[in-house]
Amino acid sequence: MTVADAKSRIGVTGLAVMGANLARNIARRGTPVAVHNRTPARTREFMEAYGDEGAFTAAESMEDFVAALERPRRIIVMVKAGAPVDAVIEEISPLLDEGDIIIDAGNSHFPDTKRRTDACAERGLRFMGVGVSGGEEGALLGPSIMPGGDPSAYAEVEDIFTGIAAVVDGTPCCVHVGPDGAGHYVKMVHNGIEYADIQLIAEAYDLLRHVAGLDAPAIGKIFEEWNAGDLESYLIEITGEVLQKTDARTGGPLVDAIVDQAEQKGTGRWTSQDALELGVPLTGITEAVFARTLSSLRQERKAAAGTLAGPVPGAGENRTDLVEDIRQALYASKVVAYAQGFAQMRAASQANDWNLDLGAMATIWRGGCIIRARFLNRIREAYAEHEDIENLLMVPYFTEAVANAQDAWRRVVATATEQGVAIPAFSSSLSYYDGYRRERGPANLIQGLRDYFGAHTYRRIDAEGSFHTRWAQDGTEVRTDV
Amino acid sequence: MTVADAKSRIGVTGLAVMGANLARNIARRGTPVAVHNRTPARTREFMEAYGDEGAFTAAESMEDFVAALERPRRIIVMVKAGAPVDAVIEEISPLLDEGDIIIDAGNSHFPDTKRRTDACAERGLRFMGVGVSGGEEGALLGPSIMPGGDPSAYAEVEDIFTGIAAVVDGTPCCVHVGPDGAGHYVKMVHNGIEYADIQLIAEAYDLLRHVAGLDAPAIGKIFEEWNAGDLESYLIEITGEVLQKTDARTGGPLVDAIVDQAEQKGTGRWTSQDALELGVPLTGITEAVFARTLSSLRQERKAAAGTLAGPVPGAGENRTDLVEDIRQALYASKVVAYAQGFAQMRAASQANDWNLDLGAMATIWRGGCIIRARFLNRIREAYAEHEDIENLLMVPYFTEAVANAQDAWRRVVATATEQGVAIPAFSSSLSYYDGYRRERGPANLIQGLRDYFGAHTYRRIDAEGSFHTRWAQDGTEVRTDV
Repeated sequence: MTVADAKSRIGVTGLAVMGANLARNIARRGTPVAVHNRTPARTREFMEAYGDEGAFTAAESMEDFVAALERPRRIIVMVKAGAPVDAVIEEISPLLDEGDIIIDAGNSHFPDTKRRTDACAERGLRFMGVGVSGGEEGALLGPSIMPGGDPSAYAEVEDIFTGIAAVVDGTPCCVHVGPDGAGHYVKMVHNGIEYADIQLIAEAYDLLRHVAGLDAPAIGKIFEEWNAGDLESYLIEITGEVLQKTDARTGGPLVDAIVDQAEQKGTGRWTSQDALELGVPLTGITEAVFARTLSSLRQERKAAAGTLAGPVPGAGENRTDLVEDIRQALYASKVVAYAQGFAQMRAASQANDWNLDLGAMATIWRGGCIIRARFLNRIREAYAEHEDIENLLMVPYFTEAVANAQDAWRRVVATATEQGVAIPAFSSSLSYYDGYRRERGPANLIQGLRDYFGAHTYRRIDAEGSFHTRWAQDGTEVRTDV
Repeated sequence: MTVADAKSRIGVTGLAVMGANLARNIARRGTPVAVHNRTPARTREFMEAYGDEGAFTAAESMEDFVAALERPRRIIVMVKAGAPVDAVIEEISPLLDEGDIIIDAGNSHFPDTKRRTDACAERGLRFMGVGVSGGEEGALLGPSIMPGGDPSAYAEVEDIFTGIAAVVDGTPCCVHVGPDGAGHYVKMVHNGIEYADIQLIAEAYDLLRHVAGLDAPAIGKIFEEWNAGDLESYLIEITGEVLQKTDARTGGPLVDAIVDQAEQKGTGRWTSQDALELGVPLTGITEAVFARTLSSLRQERKAAAGTLAGPVPGAGENRTDLVEDIRQALYASKVVAYAQGFAQMRAASQANDWNLDLGAMATIWRGGCIIRARFLNRIREAYAEHEDIENLLMVPYFTEAVANAQDAWRRVVATATEQGVAIPAFSSSLSYYDGYRRERGPANLIQGLRDYFGAHTYRRIDAEGSFHTRWAQDGTEVRTDV
């Protein structure tokens, strides 16, 4: 064990790659960091590899780890979400003093963060739930950080967090999000939007591959070109790289050798489940989550491919403007996915009294994180101009962008439909758009049916109150709320 | 208080319309029933209105209610789902003896049913969670009943339940579903499927109204005709009636006077949330739930209608075969919704060790309940022929039905897309179909991206194991699972 002379300003327990890179990032910027891992061997490996990058204090026991920290103790916990987080809290809490700060920087579910906040408060400890995005590289070089929790606790770590975060136009990608679960909530929605972004990219790739008939490197070039325009973003950029990657084993494109089963870790699913709970239509992200679960049914799909009828894509579609149409469909669908995600955060903010600053969220997502994109500047600008936005589609910039893209978007959905290519996110986003711009939709019939079979009542457009028609009796209408 | 000489075989507490009708149904078939309501006035009203329909014992206190029942006591609780159910259990449990049976016949969430089952077992009581579908009329004249819980408890009420259930071809629409939460789970999925059925009907109506340009009574006639064919079902039948209903106030169609905001009570949302939890793609039901939440944003839609660009439906579509195309799209989408719902029940059965007999579920849904339909006979037959069905789309009858319908289905989705009519359930069902029949989808790219930004690894089609490409380093591929 190496013990530095002075105590460390902050500690990191959990030295898997995310925790290790976060600790290195902090130390490299001049802050002394105590490091700890459940298995001491990993701590030793860490020190051997990175010990000279900054003022580290390595602790092999939790007691030594806590003893190495200045007061109030600032302890970043970077372990797998779920039970491991609770286990660390249980182990470390008795060693701490009033006012010490436990910082869960993993992908915890926000109700767990609320629960842990309360439990720690009962013990006199301050708890923070902090979303960190950017993967391994972001953690090391500058992530987007979404801290939630007590403002007094945030004040104790603000300089460290803003110091290690990505910086865009001089602004660090880190801002206090709100109390208790707010940070993890926002990170969850960030990840949900990431699911939608990725699904939309996959659908565009699928159409370019099977309708336009292009191979992976050619499609990679197209994404590279798209990255020079409105779609400029980290995900579009790396899509260009991934598609152009040659497989050392086969000599062909690497993607052609990768199994088509997408995995997931839970944050996308949580986002959709919470949107259902809040009653916010979140179709783009949800279709993206379901598309991953459908992809996982590889054996079933294989059997179905030989049995279920449908067109063979690629026959009869040679429109020269197809590539540009797909770009526009991708852009418009992306606007919808963000509009839905921001509407969900707005609803969650109201439901939880979080007072979220959604413009600030767009601001801190511009750098460091997976969904960083030029696009987020437009959202940031929208919130700078309008304090409360019910739906981003109604902001002139996006209204116009989608108006310009919608003809192409419709052509792409129609083409994919005719050619039998699944486009769940493109088409559900368009249905959302068309549903949202309908002053009068068909739900009047739904209410009529519900009243018929369940006496659930309906409202009238021409009179106040709730009404029930005695469908199976004399057919008369009665008012039910008086 | 009226006390019959003999004790009652069963009791019903909670005399709102569902409880009252269930009690009347039981008594009318000759079983003595004790009735109770928290507010005694309602019990008195019940006796005044229906007291002569059978051998009722009215109890004004919970003590009298319990005392009026033969042992083991059989107590149906029919109160609002949630806290009221727990309140009744808390109140009545101390009055009961070992082996007595509490039967929750409301729309409780299945995890609550599991919890209550365990809590009652600790007190020596038997608990049943029973799904009852059919609305008020079904409860009175013959519902579809989905009882879950201890088989020994079910044996004590089987004759009563099968005696009051709807009967189709001599078979009562009631069968023991499985242990603890299984009955409420199946009822939940039933309701989820109902959401999808209703949404598909609403989309068909919307297209007939705004693309084909027909008025409500004319569309009602079309549904009446459809009800003579493959679509024959309670919901199609009452859609015909609702659309043809004249409004006494305006003289026009009643539906035209109903506000287009659909409400919901939670079972659809729960179904989608659980599908996300299980990892089962359930797009039809979920889009239906989201369509209701979107419809509820009436003020936002009104503002958007004047702002967001899009085509005006009805211009340029005069295909004479449009009505038949819509019928086929409705049928094919319905097959997908049921295929997804049954796949979810299969997954839940495996996850919970419930050993659900899915053919029996199709059988008991043929009568009494809201989704009763000719169609369910085809599902029943499918399970009679094949013991385990991964997906109903793979059963020859449905494979062929969708193969025949799919050209029309694609034309409808393309037409609606071009004309700007939202069809979230039609199009997401079609995307599911096209995704399910793809031996190789685009999720290989998703895995490539996840490996790039998060080192989440991927599998290869030509080698065992998990792999990671060192994208940002030297670009080589490493195996990660050895």
